[in-house]
Amino acid sequence: MKTYLECVPCFFKQILILSGKAGASRAKQKMLLNELAKILPKFSLNSSPPEMAKIIYDLISEKMGKRDFYAKEKIKSNRLALNIYPRLKRKVNRSKDRLLAAAELAIAGNIIDYGAISDLNITKELAKILSEETRLIKKENKKLFNFAEFKSALRKAGTVLYLGDNAGETVFDRVLIEEIKRADKNKKIIYAVKESPILNDALIEDALFCGIDKNAEIMSSGSTAPGTLLSLCSKDFLKIYKKADMVISKGQGNFEALSNAKREIFFLFMAKCGVIAGNAGCNINDIILLKHGGGKRKSLKKTG
Amino acid sequence: MKTYLECVPCFFKQILILSGKAGASRAKQKMLLNELAKILPKFSLNSSPPEMAKIIYDLISEKMGKRDFYAKEKIKSNRLALNIYPRLKRKVNRSKDRLLAAAELAIAGNIIDYGAISDLNITKELAKILSEETRLIKKENKKLFNFAEFKSALRKAGTVLYLGDNAGETVFDRVLIEEIKRADKNKKIIYAVKESPILNDALIEDALFCGIDKNAEIMSSGSTAPGTLLSLCSKDFLKIYKKADMVISKGQGNFEALSNAKREIFFLFMAKCGVIAGNAGCNINDIILLKHGGGKRKSLKKTG
Repeated sequence: MKTYLECVPCFFKQILILSGKAGASRAKQKMLLNELAKILPKFSLNSSPPEMAKIIYDLISEKMGKRDFYAKEKIKSNRLALNIYPRLKRKVNRSKDRLLAAAELAIAGNIIDYGAISDLNITKELAKILSEETRLIKKENKKLFNFAEFKSALRKAGTVLYLGDNAGETVFDRVLIEEIKRADKNKKIIYAVKESPILNDALIEDALFCGIDKNAEIMSSGSTAPGTLLSLCSKDFLKIYKKADMVISKGQGNFEALSNAKREIFFLFMAKCGVIAGNAGCNINDIILLKHGGGKRKSLKKTG
Repeated sequence: MKTYLECVPCFFKQILILSGKAGASRAKQKMLLNELAKILPKFSLNSSPPEMAKIIYDLISEKMGKRDFYAKEKIKSNRLALNIYPRLKRKVNRSKDRLLAAAELAIAGNIIDYGAISDLNITKELAKILSEETRLIKKENKKLFNFAEFKSALRKAGTVLYLGDNAGETVFDRVLIEEIKRADKNKKIIYAVKESPILNDALIEDALFCGIDKNAEIMSSGSTAPGTLLSLCSKDFLKIYKKADMVISKGQGNFEALSNAKREIFFLFMAKCGVIAGNAGCNINDIILLKHGGGKRKSLKKTG
């Protein structure tokens, strides 16, 4: 997805939120706003929002001399989500369609996104997911919830590449992965995370802490942006990305990074901003399971 | 009021909204965002937000070759507000405290602010004011609704300078001015408007159309910003500003421009953004009648 003009005010807002989290003084925050102002005219709108998000994050990291601004939130998210793991499993056990229930929960877990919702009340959001309220899922809208295609692709796939998004959300991913493996224990699943701290995106340690390794192989994609930017990804990852029978992509950042990808991808995310919702053709807070592409997969040499 | 860092993302948003209204292409909008990015590092945060709003408005006017982007909204606001004028009068007639009812209505009319609410549904908002719903007025909070002081100052004042804000809101101002004159027909009231089109701020023609001239003298303050910036005001206006026994200032823009003024001013406005609400110590959508200052009025030579 390219960057929309409407993203620009949000970039400046991100500077304030992130630098505030990093403990910057007001003077330093003003300096950082000015730095972004200098960068903006050179930034191509053909780039995707996670590319600018990375520039902003790197800038603040450099000026503040640290990088992991969401360390506490990530630990808390992992712990709280693990606490409710048995209840998530019960939800799946009691459902009529286990895979559907697990997919819905995995997408609902995408609410744990401090990049999009800086004042996220995770306790409240997790309680909401556990309550009946979360039945706002768009199953009825087949355009935005391609579950039949998802199920069918899963059935055929030998290897599934699963692109994780946020820490804590990883527990919800685990529930879905467990259902995938339950249907076919020989399926190979690779769970890819980010290379280094960026917002509250899951890293290898988060995936391990949440128990993803019980049913999937965990690897870093190599991306240091809050989305799987193929230009930043490792060769090893790109090989898997291109060869995998199916790619499941979680979250807004991965959607922004890969929505123009040449291969078939299933995007599972919650739309949390107007620009994304507009691009996906849904409303804010809608829960999306979108089949993208489906043309021939490209050879190893081509990116995207 | 100085500019807060939190205003910066909003400046970029204003560029998009205003240039969109002015009919700019996406390429032109990007160019305008870049222009603002160039200006930003030079802009002092000790300036008030209306100073930047003026810079933004001037920039878009210059690049688009026109200035009056809200002409239609102003005409519509004036007409719709005049349509409900008899009902506003009935509300005052039926009230226990005529001046209080008129002041409440004048502040409620400050909702007609396309600068703060770009997607304002004026028909809906006027209906809300006419319904009982608008009884959300903060009379009970004496800190933010200094009505007793307002009433007392009015009683003593021979000359009242009334700083208008938006077109349409002028009808609500007329209702309040009529109550002031009803209590004392010898009181001199000067109603000041902006010098040239800026957002949907009222100009002389709007004040005339809404019938302000029946009870007040209409003049331009000379300010071309969306707030009475004294540095832009005419000598004639400044003389009146300094000599008037009482100044009633309507709206956010005038509050931003004059909240650090040295003379006593009564600010009547609705807080429509988090930064203003934070500065005034209230919540968004709160209705404010704030007595500011009260020290000795300054001589003609000093500004502010």
